Amino acid sequence: MESLSKNKIKTIRALAMKKFRDKEGLFVVEGEKTVNEIIRLYPQLIDCIVTTSDQYSFDGSVYHTDESGMKQISSFKTAPDVLAVVHKPSFKEDLSGLIIALDDIQDPGNLGTIIRTADWFGVRTILCNQHTADVFNPKVIQSTMGAIFRVNVVYCDLKEKLETLNKKKYAAIMNGTDLYRADLVQDAVIIIGNEGNGVSTEIENLSDTGLTIPKFGESESLNAAMACGILLSHFRAQS
Amino acid sequence: MESLSKNKIKTIRALAMKKFRDKEGLFVVEGEKTVNEIIRLYPQLIDCIVTTSDQYSFDGSVYHTDESGMKQISSFKTAPDVLAVVHKPSFKEDLSGLIIALDDIQDPGNLGTIIRTADWFGVRTILCNQHTADVFNPKVIQSTMGAIFRVNVVYCDLKEKLETLNKKKYAAIMNGTDLYRADLVQDAVIIIGNEGNGVSTEIENLSDTGLTIPKFGESESLNAAMACGILLSHFRAQS
Repeated sequence: MESLSKNKIKTIRALAMKKFRDKEGLFVVEGEKTVNEIIRLYPQLIDCIVTTSDQYSFDGSVYHTDESGMKQISSFKTAPDVLAVVHKPSFKEDLSGLIIALDDIQDPGNLGTIIRTADWFGVRTILCNQHTADVFNPKVIQSTMGAIFRVNVVYCDLKEKLETLNKKKYAAIMNGTDLYRADLVQDAVIIIGNEGNGVSTEIENLSDTGLTIPKFGESESLNAAMACGILLSHFRAQS
Repeated sequence: MESLSKNKIKTIRALAMKKFRDKEGLFVVEGEKTVNEIIRLYPQLIDCIVTTSDQYSFDGSVYHTDESGMKQISSFKTAPDVLAVVHKPSFKEDLSGLIIALDDIQDPGNLGTIIRTADWFGVRTILCNQHTADVFNPKVIQSTMGAIFRVNVVYCDLKEKLETLNKKKYAAIMNGTDLYRADLVQDAVIIIGNEGNGVSTEIENLSDTGLTIPKFGESESLNAAMACGILLSHFRAQS
């Protein structure tokens, strides 16, 4: 096991920034659970592993570092014991079945949770407008719990894409049709909007039906990922 | 407007720890949106406001500090422009209608999201076992988006409480009754378990029905807050 050089530390640190992830085609996965899953399922995608353990069984490049080295390359307050530098998977735009469209989801945790939940409900593809958080952001990766390798996340001109998409289009909005009384077609796209502003007017105008999760209490809104998961579940309940 | 003394900084910093929150009966709310909501709805609960602005309109103690002072007292990587030190609201154990029981929810973000979602769906009370994250943790407060003042969060011996609770008890588990085919009684408690281990055997044994959200894809699990929100929504859809 080689020890981590200053140069390698610099390279891995740079991957915290989208610019460098795009340039190198690499991203960072932190923590034992997800790293183990990648080793098991997609070992061919691993560029290298960095660990604080003295022994680590992996058939590829493994670097050793101490806690302080790990702190330098981690994107989290609590640095992990192991991280992997991974080649980006190649996403396919598989538009079959129920899909999701994200119109400006800014919070990495929300995006990650949406991907994880989409995977649970068998959604193959998530379309994102260009202002949605980057899927390879370390906080997104953390929240996906491995689902990043099973759901296609495709960035596009969302307006253009939706205009030509031959599917029923449902947008999550505040004053739409009651979700519990709506007829939910499975060959559809569910559109989720920005955390603060909801779905933009431009995109809402392209939708066939606005859907609203009925409110029984006082909260001003639901978390965007939560709204997405609740919609997905009610769609699947009608399948 | 007084400027923030070193001593006051020390006192507010200490409120990041549960021990001091319990001792003082105070907690910290960060960020303009939630602080404004408290000023509007519960001004009587405010002990003091700390702000980086030169002018701040509030009829009570307001302290001024600069960015570096704010950094010292904030629990977040990005310090806010304003925070409030607030007296804990007094929670009532209102067991009417649909309620939630949390068996070891560890992640503050999950607890906060559960409280926000419970508020949306009109849940009056959340029972928590003693190992559940502290509701006055700054990260919980942040995720509740103000719902902390509208939902009663009651810590208790959960086993004891459930044993005497005269309600139908549903536990979120991995191999239970299909949520989409279950008969969902509204006078019920929904039990949500720990992020990693689910509902403990001891608590599961006290439940009448185990409920499972059907899986259509590959994810190993759903996020605990997400599972809670989806269950709540399907309960309300049958109301």
